Amino acid sequence: MTDLEPIPIVGGTGALGAGLALRWARAGVPIAIGSRSAERAGEAAAKLRDAVPEAKVEGLPNEDAARRAEVVFLTVPFRAQSENLNNLREALRPGQILVDCTVPLAAAVSGKATRSLGVWQGSAAQQAEEMVPDGVTVVAALHTVGAPSLANPETTLDEDVLICGDRKADKARVARLIELIEGLRAVNAGPLEMARIVEQLTPMLISVNARYKTHAGIRLTGLPDADHWQ
Amino acid sequence: MTDLEPIPIVGGTGALGAGLALRWARAGVPIAIGSRSAERAGEAAAKLRDAVPEAKVEGLPNEDAARRAEVVFLTVPFRAQSENLNNLREALRPGQILVDCTVPLAAAVSGKATRSLGVWQGSAAQQAEEMVPDGVTVVAALHTVGAPSLANPETTLDEDVLICGDRKADKARVARLIELIEGLRAVNAGPLEMARIVEQLTPMLISVNARYKTHAGIRLTGLPDADHWQ
Repeated sequence: MTDLEPIPIVGGTGALGAGLALRWARAGVPIAIGSRSAERAGEAAAKLRDAVPEAKVEGLPNEDAARRAEVVFLTVPFRAQSENLNNLREALRPGQILVDCTVPLAAAVSGKATRSLGVWQGSAAQQAEEMVPDGVTVVAALHTVGAPSLANPETTLDEDVLICGDRKADKARVARLIELIEGLRAVNAGPLEMARIVEQLTPMLISVNARYKTHAGIRLTGLPDADHWQ
Repeated sequence: MTDLEPIPIVGGTGALGAGLALRWARAGVPIAIGSRSAERAGEAAAKLRDAVPEAKVEGLPNEDAARRAEVVFLTVPFRAQSENLNNLREALRPGQILVDCTVPLAAAVSGKATRSLGVWQGSAAQQAEEMVPDGVTVVAALHTVGAPSLANPETTLDEDVLICGDRKADKARVARLIELIEGLRAVNAGPLEMARIVEQLTPMLISVNARYKTHAGIRLTGLPDADHWQ
């Protein structure tokens, strides 16, 4: 990936996707906001340009956004994950990395956001891995970063992003993109199967947020200071 | 509970129990170390007095230790949890709080410590709740605090303890005891069912520890500074 490639955000009109787009745009990173509707993608791009006049942002149908770079972020609710992955089958190419941010909250079936659904494959990320075309690898990340924190330009981020995946080199590429957002540290949380645990942190944080009236994040203590991804 | 009551640690000769005993003893808190074997309990108490000469510590059979105060810590491996709870049935009294620290690691059945077992009730803590006598309440805590960190007197602790339970007053009592250990902050993580998630943090941290060659802990960011338990 060259520095000029945008970061595609499939589902970029949702709360998490829009929050990430805002943060990356403020960091000078070009963005391709994807949506099922080209019109809504365009509106989201225009809104982002209003918030960040220097933003390099395009609004595109999801499939077109996913073709714009090798590392593609999927930021849709669990309810829409399978449908989106089906729609991306023709768009994704071998060698691409799909960064799955999906959390199987019970809210997907009108349950509580403080509870989760069991996913047959073990995690939403492992479901994504089963669904992407051959040669596309899945990395799981960004489950614990609250959309309201990302969206509020006054909020100083200061938390970790736990990254799961089966190849360190893939995780490192994703980590570099995530760490372009000020205040986020990317931590290698292990193989993709560890998404079974990391995805569960979100309902726990949602529970804590309600109790403490805040937007909590996760930090691992005791990690060495050195660059984790060399 | 008066200030003179000791903290009973059932399974206090194990790594987590011994580490907690060391930290509480250094804080001047009296301890009742429990073990299946009175002899091993006595040896652990003697060893603790060697490390902390001013320690107020007794070594007792588990059942006797559990009778020494209202809040009892259970720090045994998952493999031994049910057996210990069976053995405690005659000892525990209504009004007591059992603090379950059990993590259902797959290591209990010779699997990996970076993987967990599914517990029918949802979590080890909920299994404990099913097994304690009527009137005894279960609070889950201390899953993410590493025994090696507790045991090493050179290690400065700086992490959170996520506490799950169905009554805030019970959790607050446990929180006060945990916060007697310097460097631990007790966070209200929600009802006991949330132990399904909190217990899973341990295999994730074990995975991180192997990767980063450290003893990682958990910290929630963004919480208010005020006393969480008033």
